[in-house]
Amino acid sequence: MPVYKAPVSDTLFLLTDVFDFQRYSNLPRFADAPIDVVEAVLTEGGKFAEEVLQPLNLSGDKEGCERRSDGSVVTPTGFKQAYKAYVDGGWVGLAGATEYGGQGLPHFLSVALSEYTIAANQAFAMYPGLTNGATAALMVHADDAIKARYLPKMTTGEWTGTMNLTEPHCGTDLGLIKTRATRNEDGSFAISGQKIFISAGDHDLADNIIHLVLARIEGAPAGVKGISLFVAPKVLVNDDGSLGAPNTLGCGSIEHKMGIHGNATCVMNYDGAKGWLVGEENRGLNAMFVMMNGARLGVAVQGVAQSEVAYQNAAAYAKDRLQGRSLSGAKAPEKSADPIIVHPDVRRMLLEIRSFNEAARALMLWVALSEDEALESPDTAARQAADDRIGLLTPVIKGVFTDVGFANCVKAQQVLGGHGYIAEWGMEQFVRDARIAMIYEGANGIQALDLVGRKLPKDGGRAITAFFGEVSGFLNENKEDAALAPYLAPVKTALGQLQQATMWLMQNGMKNPDNAGAASTDYMHLFGLVALGFMWARIAKAVLARQAAGTSNEALDSKLWLARFFNARMLPEGGAHLQRIASGAETLMALSAAAF
Amino acid sequence: MPVYKAPVSDTLFLLTDVFDFQRYSNLPRFADAPIDVVEAVLTEGGKFAEEVLQPLNLSGDKEGCERRSDGSVVTPTGFKQAYKAYVDGGWVGLAGATEYGGQGLPHFLSVALSEYTIAANQAFAMYPGLTNGATAALMVHADDAIKARYLPKMTTGEWTGTMNLTEPHCGTDLGLIKTRATRNEDGSFAISGQKIFISAGDHDLADNIIHLVLARIEGAPAGVKGISLFVAPKVLVNDDGSLGAPNTLGCGSIEHKMGIHGNATCVMNYDGAKGWLVGEENRGLNAMFVMMNGARLGVAVQGVAQSEVAYQNAAAYAKDRLQGRSLSGAKAPEKSADPIIVHPDVRRMLLEIRSFNEAARALMLWVALSEDEALESPDTAARQAADDRIGLLTPVIKGVFTDVGFANCVKAQQVLGGHGYIAEWGMEQFVRDARIAMIYEGANGIQALDLVGRKLPKDGGRAITAFFGEVSGFLNENKEDAALAPYLAPVKTALGQLQQATMWLMQNGMKNPDNAGAASTDYMHLFGLVALGFMWARIAKAVLARQAAGTSNEALDSKLWLARFFNARMLPEGGAHLQRIASGAETLMALSAAAF
Repeated sequence: MPVYKAPVSDTLFLLTDVFDFQRYSNLPRFADAPIDVVEAVLTEGGKFAEEVLQPLNLSGDKEGCERRSDGSVVTPTGFKQAYKAYVDGGWVGLAGATEYGGQGLPHFLSVALSEYTIAANQAFAMYPGLTNGATAALMVHADDAIKARYLPKMTTGEWTGTMNLTEPHCGTDLGLIKTRATRNEDGSFAISGQKIFISAGDHDLADNIIHLVLARIEGAPAGVKGISLFVAPKVLVNDDGSLGAPNTLGCGSIEHKMGIHGNATCVMNYDGAKGWLVGEENRGLNAMFVMMNGARLGVAVQGVAQSEVAYQNAAAYAKDRLQGRSLSGAKAPEKSADPIIVHPDVRRMLLEIRSFNEAARALMLWVALSEDEALESPDTAARQAADDRIGLLTPVIKGVFTDVGFANCVKAQQVLGGHGYIAEWGMEQFVRDARIAMIYEGANGIQALDLVGRKLPKDGGRAITAFFGEVSGFLNENKEDAALAPYLAPVKTALGQLQQATMWLMQNGMKNPDNAGAASTDYMHLFGLVALGFMWARIAKAVLARQAAGTSNEALDSKLWLARFFNARMLPEGGAHLQRIASGAETLMALSAAAF
Repeated sequence: MPVYKAPVSDTLFLLTDVFDFQRYSNLPRFADAPIDVVEAVLTEGGKFAEEVLQPLNLSGDKEGCERRSDGSVVTPTGFKQAYKAYVDGGWVGLAGATEYGGQGLPHFLSVALSEYTIAANQAFAMYPGLTNGATAALMVHADDAIKARYLPKMTTGEWTGTMNLTEPHCGTDLGLIKTRATRNEDGSFAISGQKIFISAGDHDLADNIIHLVLARIEGAPAGVKGISLFVAPKVLVNDDGSLGAPNTLGCGSIEHKMGIHGNATCVMNYDGAKGWLVGEENRGLNAMFVMMNGARLGVAVQGVAQSEVAYQNAAAYAKDRLQGRSLSGAKAPEKSADPIIVHPDVRRMLLEIRSFNEAARALMLWVALSEDEALESPDTAARQAADDRIGLLTPVIKGVFTDVGFANCVKAQQVLGGHGYIAEWGMEQFVRDARIAMIYEGANGIQALDLVGRKLPKDGGRAITAFFGEVSGFLNENKEDAALAPYLAPVKTALGQLQQATMWLMQNGMKNPDNAGAASTDYMHLFGLVALGFMWARIAKAVLARQAAGTSNEALDSKLWLARFFNARMLPEGGAHLQRIASGAETLMALSAAAF
């Protein structure tokens, strides 16, 4: 049986020592969240993840969700009770608006905690995750009547939410959506059509499920400019808030898929279902973006989370499994063989994972803290800078964290040899579950295009300029620090490569957009390396400061070696990315489609 | 439903134009296999794979194997009939010894064909694959009585074979084996113990299953020098060849695993089972190596095969799926959207796969042809050179082909977006099936160690010296060819990196073996890049020759672009490998085991 331990002390170290948690104390939501409260919340949440959610992960995968003949959907054994406890504990509404029953704590806390719940049980964590996304979209775009009707119970998690975008013939290209909405006399709409791949589309965890649905109002313009957003509950809600008749929508079938079996991925059929417009007509994609951006950060967290739990299990196995002897002579001569952790190549796999995990967690928290800043900072410039950073880094962390997170699960599985392939050890589930994160909320190729095509040129390159300024500023400020120097030089090299690549894109992407497309994925990963390397430089500085103050410990000291490993073993990839980028689009575009 | 088309013309082009098939005509087995016979065999075998095996792949995965309460094991619907047809067609014994009923055709032909059967249905292809391996081991090591008893029916495939090495506490480190053999009075042995992860351990495809089992004879020395090899049939065979009583061995359970569900991976219990010694006492590992080397080549083929079938399905989808518009303006304005093959990043994924597949197929055939040379060449030096090449390249192709083959299945899955995650499209099965090839027959980390620790230093570096000579010889011979020049320069760079890495290993691996271990996986992949780049250089030369002769065609011409793509996009990784290798073992070994 796999194990999981929430890395609470690592999260706290990043908050206090790397991100100087104190500096956020001017934000209103932080007033009720001093560091000891943060610690208490993370500790309790971690315990919930470890003790309640993780034990249901393997069994939930095996059992899966079932659609009964009456069309109702049942989640795996134990999910319903766990979800009730999760709602009762106030976890869904942790960062929810207080006026709707949320706890109003900072957003970063919700993100930090979600790493633990996802690591423990990704399929489970998706139910509240999607609910939070739908809640956020309604908060921003819905009118007061809709808010009053749905938000109180969605904020607490008593009702859950979904997003309904994809149809059989379109996912990425939402301009092709066919689901139609016709006006009812009472101001509502009748929605008809089929949606597919709807996560948490139906289940038995909550009395009601609030669907956000993209559809085309009759007579709307073709393409993306004719898409509107609707809210359509599973069960209609009376004016007094009580539940009324079932809506004419439902789960047609559950997809048979590679992983996240504990989450019901539904084909949803809308048969004149009653729905209400959210936001303006034909501006549905804009409204959906609120949800999608948050969701992309959430999916990025999945990459880190799966990588972390996979690491923990692989490391435990490597320390326990006796097999062969160290190349440099027996390390445990009293035993029949040495534990495989003595082998450099086993350590390589583990360190590749771990040196990603810790820096990725830092980057995730930096973006999450930026969300709170963007929403609440009293300083306009700070709000804008935070907003720019989020916009720039969201595709990077979604794409890179999920690509690397998946690859790390595969590496962790490899550490177990044959046992990694057997279901009961749980490693192959991490691989299967992590795989979806590279696909949904915009496949990673789309993230890369969003980065090079939209985020880089946006506002005259303001966000990327600021990012370069932040990294090079840090390198400059610390260039006299001899102890830190070895941690900075490789990051400086990687930053230089990213700047060269950016220049190349500016010079070559404009005149031939295929050059930008051909470079996009390599550029995104090069960006990821630099951002993660920057995090390691900041972590190294924080550890050295603790050492200088005499308050370090073995766990912190070891981070310096992780930083060195990352620089020596992961950053060299930057040169290869740059070479590929600079090779341009020709070798990709020369072949005719028929030649493939 | 996924599709598959055996790439017969690509295989033939490699044989005739790249490897100068004629030059093998001096080998006895090639006397009955002129190129038109080869073509006929590949065409027929390809058809069998496409029409009989591929349609059972998805259903076989879904249904899996079942162990009935009486201990018997049933394969998925259709496997039994397909296997009978496969045996009746003479496919199992294609390269089998004629004295035991085989067809005595060249070994390379069996390898070339196995790519097709594995691509069509890996789980199925493992049954005859393991049988061929067991047959080979008995051919080399068993005495005449054992050969006469088992080989006729194993050669034709009427009976199947297995290899029983792994036990719950040991896989890589076979010195820890506990299964014991005690002498019976009649000269046979009574074998007792438990083996796990036994592919094709039990099933309903054949009347008998011949197990090769590693065990320790009572009183044998500890460690690998006390391991002997035994043959233990599922059903005892009478002296007249008829089947007698069942042996006291059987499948205790079928493992629940990530993929290859159509192949029964069994826990095998031996309860005083009757077995006979194969080869010398305590020399079992040597005997098993015959089987393992062949098996490692077979597993390498799995990497190429899964990558190929995944490519074919991803390419078909990319040409069919309408979504979005080309970055450089609509390419199919008459349709609602362009096919996604217009997007550079989609092409990148497809070309990364395809540019591997074609070169890997070439490398696989080169090694396979070397097997025939090593066995049959009248020239001692040629036999030795071929044998050296096989020894050197076996860990490279096992490790690299299966790592890259798996990664390619993941990329191909990504091309399908959400559909790639859904079982009915078949892509996620390719990923799950391909995953095992990185693990079994020696996990890829072991292949890398075998390469740097055994194969490089062996015979004073004779094999690696010869390999370098072959590649640089080709580059030198062709350096005046202006048309070929652009295809050679990047390979020369990569070769230089591999030579530098080899030098680094010689200088640093001796004094600290952890340096060799820390470098091993990167070295193996750098080696793979050079070997694949060498294949592309040879393919490019062959295509240019056809163009000069006016006998090229569009399919051949397109290979020049694949070569350019490989050089521009895949070879740059070589520099990153070299940097990582040269960073040494320190950042891997510094942390204490407890810090993981």
